[in-house]
Amino acid sequence: MTLSADDKWDDLWLNVHLATMQPGAGYGEVLDAAIAVKHGRIAWLGKRSDLPAGHAATRQHDGNGCWVTPGLIDCHTHIVYAGNRSDEFEARLNGVPYEEISRRGGGIVSTVKATRAASEDALFDASLPRVKALLAEGVTTLEVKSGYGLDTGTEAKMLRVARRLGEQLDVRVRTTFLGAHAVPPEFKTRTDEYLQLVCHDMLDTLVEAGLVDAVDAFCENIAFSREQTEQVFLAAQRHGLPVKLHAEQLSDQDGASLVAAFHGLSADHLEWLSPKGVHAMAQAGTVAVLLPGAFYTLRETRLPPVEALRAAGVPMAVSTDCNPGTSPMTSLLLTMNMACTLFRLTPQEALAGVTCHAARALGLAEETGTLSVGKSADFALWRIDRPGDLAYAIGFNPCAGVVFRGTLRG
Amino acid sequence: MTLSADDKWDDLWLNVHLATMQPGAGYGEVLDAAIAVKHGRIAWLGKRSDLPAGHAATRQHDGNGCWVTPGLIDCHTHIVYAGNRSDEFEARLNGVPYEEISRRGGGIVSTVKATRAASEDALFDASLPRVKALLAEGVTTLEVKSGYGLDTGTEAKMLRVARRLGEQLDVRVRTTFLGAHAVPPEFKTRTDEYLQLVCHDMLDTLVEAGLVDAVDAFCENIAFSREQTEQVFLAAQRHGLPVKLHAEQLSDQDGASLVAAFHGLSADHLEWLSPKGVHAMAQAGTVAVLLPGAFYTLRETRLPPVEALRAAGVPMAVSTDCNPGTSPMTSLLLTMNMACTLFRLTPQEALAGVTCHAARALGLAEETGTLSVGKSADFALWRIDRPGDLAYAIGFNPCAGVVFRGTLRG
Ligand SMILES: [Zn+2]
Ligand SMILES: [Zn+2]
Repeated sequence: MTLSADDKWDDLWLNVHLATMQPGAGYGEVLDAAIAVKHGRIAWLGKRSDLPAGHAATRQHDGNGCWVTPGLIDCHTHIVYAGNRSDEFEARLNGVPYEEISRRGGGIVSTVKATRAASEDALFDASLPRVKALLAEGVTTLEVKSGYGLDTGTEAKMLRVARRLGEQLDVRVRTTFLGAHAVPPEFKTRTDEYLQLVCHDMLDTLVEAGLVDAVDAFCENIAFSREQTEQVFLAAQRHGLPVKLHAEQLSDQDGASLVAAFHGLSADHLEWLSPKGVHAMAQAGTVAVLLPGAFYTLRETRLPPVEALRAAGVPMAVSTDCNPGTSPMTSLLLTMNMACTLFRLTPQEALAGVTCHAARALGLAEETGTLSVGKSADFALWRIDRPGDLAYAIGFNPCAGVVFRGTLRG
Repeated sequence: MTLSADDKWDDLWLNVHLATMQPGAGYGEVLDAAIAVKHGRIAWLGKRSDLPAGHAATRQHDGNGCWVTPGLIDCHTHIVYAGNRSDEFEARLNGVPYEEISRRGGGIVSTVKATRAASEDALFDASLPRVKALLAEGVTTLEVKSGYGLDTGTEAKMLRVARRLGEQLDVRVRTTFLGAHAVPPEFKTRTDEYLQLVCHDMLDTLVEAGLVDAVDAFCENIAFSREQTEQVFLAAQRHGLPVKLHAEQLSDQDGASLVAAFHGLSADHLEWLSPKGVHAMAQAGTVAVLLPGAFYTLRETRLPPVEALRAAGVPMAVSTDCNPGTSPMTSLLLTMNMACTLFRLTPQEALAGVTCHAARALGLAEETGTLSVGKSADFALWRIDRPGDLAYAIGFNPCAGVVFRGTLRG
């Protein structure tokens, strides 16, 4: 194969090893490789010795022997919020009972209060350092959920901040509407009334404003029932929006089979997932998003059924669940380590969990998540000996550079 | 109080809040504070409004509302090593039994082999990124153990690298000789013979070379017995060196009372510490160094007796235990979170564990570890709302600057 002049690439990266992460091929390792970019997309990749005769590129980069993986994807976050719950964390460890903390206005209510009170700029400024921490570790795609507003105006404000993060930083942001996160204080005994607001006025307004890429809910005995969740999904369906679900975190509500019935993108948490739920997810192609940071912070002991998911061929994604209450975590590399150490994923599964499978959990499998010709040129360079190092090290960032849509981040 | 001209300070930090961490006073919070430095030492600290009349400083710094804590101290590390054990981590998670990994030359033996084979420069270069990761989180004092050489030449090489890290980076390094870490392969069935080497030729040579600040051993049924440990301590005593001990990690060997009997600086790990051990440590003033990273990585379930240590007034330090096998961790902030989440320390105890009590575990309580007039001006500036934030966040580094011996790190 030879290339004509107008096949000239924009960028060519040499002296790298690739972990392409194409599903079903382990890491998809290519040693002594090269990767070429044109118009922000991957134009060629392979062994350097297989580079086509006559290839040319406007810019050539020395990868210094780094490993290159797809840009990482954090597919489940509540990273846009105001306030900080370290006071509760500290009070709990000083022996203050949960009821007392709740009585003092703690818990999710305190985050809702702070988020409602914050100006849009203040909310952006509060979220920015957290997002930057993720980006420094090679993240190129980030999901952001609403759910700390619980009124139309604040939910819109949160999602506008999410969009703005995507505009101002070199990262692809997907927004998820999570009005059904909790019942706000002003609807205390009127859950169904609140749910009507979520499913109609709130969702309609946010969709109209172009702020919603997907719809999520918290299906749990302390939150919304399976029937209430179904109403949320039906509302999403009316708008042609994909759904996902906080499911089976603290008990088995059979939420996974509900989200599967809607051909949902993902069911997330899943510590209490039943064999029935596993089967339904496998049939529907719904991704299992594992959130070891919340498991760790809550000191849970019941593990998600990783063996069963693996056996059924359900793709497993891994995410920070970044949120101020149950997972104040802004490191996707650490999340990979926790997925291995706590949930017994292999390092290869953990890396697939933050690349190809995370892309699928966001409906982006065609766009990003693997190193493949035609996909967006989103990749991270790492100073490591082998891909397994990413999940092995704890609290260490070997990221040497990030390319987003073909451009090296400044 | 007024100051004369030759009381002029070198540096004055304004617009800060202090957590002085002086023992027995909680965080020792001083809001709207100032801190002054002269000749690398803290010359004054207190409320800004209490600054003495006529004070003057060569340089004045705006702390931008940051919190200032003592520089952090990582008082138990094996951070100088070559090689990397991610392959074992990966093999284990892929179901390869421990015996098979051992048969392939895995475990500590693989690190010993790589460390022996590495040149001194290669060993330095391999360790440097790990040390830099710690320093980026406000660490100003670092303990480094030998113990991957297990022969005189390599033990000396490790400790020279440790000294060189202290010379080339803005960090105070304390070296600990840990020849009694494991029995090297060439002494397989001759433990007592190896121990004689450790206690005589090896220790004498290293002390002669000025490479040893303290002596440590691994007292465990898979390592050295209590009697063998005592020989190591007696050898240290002959050289007038303080001792510390890896004690009660996997079983109760009554090591804590042995190290206490030698008025040791610290007993470390302590998951299996008995009431007798707690009592002995309290009597001797020996610090309990808790290592939650190893607990986490090994998925241990038995917790160190924190309540008993607290009740007995034993000071608790917290450290990364950075090592390639059981705690490949280079974040002291994450260690603080693990100490709270896994061991139920309070955030204040966790911060004391990496400041005042860690200093004491290294025999440096007079020199560093608190913000106090006369001590080395080692401190970290943090963009946080309150001191408890340091232990609360997971995988987030809010460090805004580090002052070591009075000088802002570049
Ligand atoms: Zn969530
Ligand atoms: Zn150790």
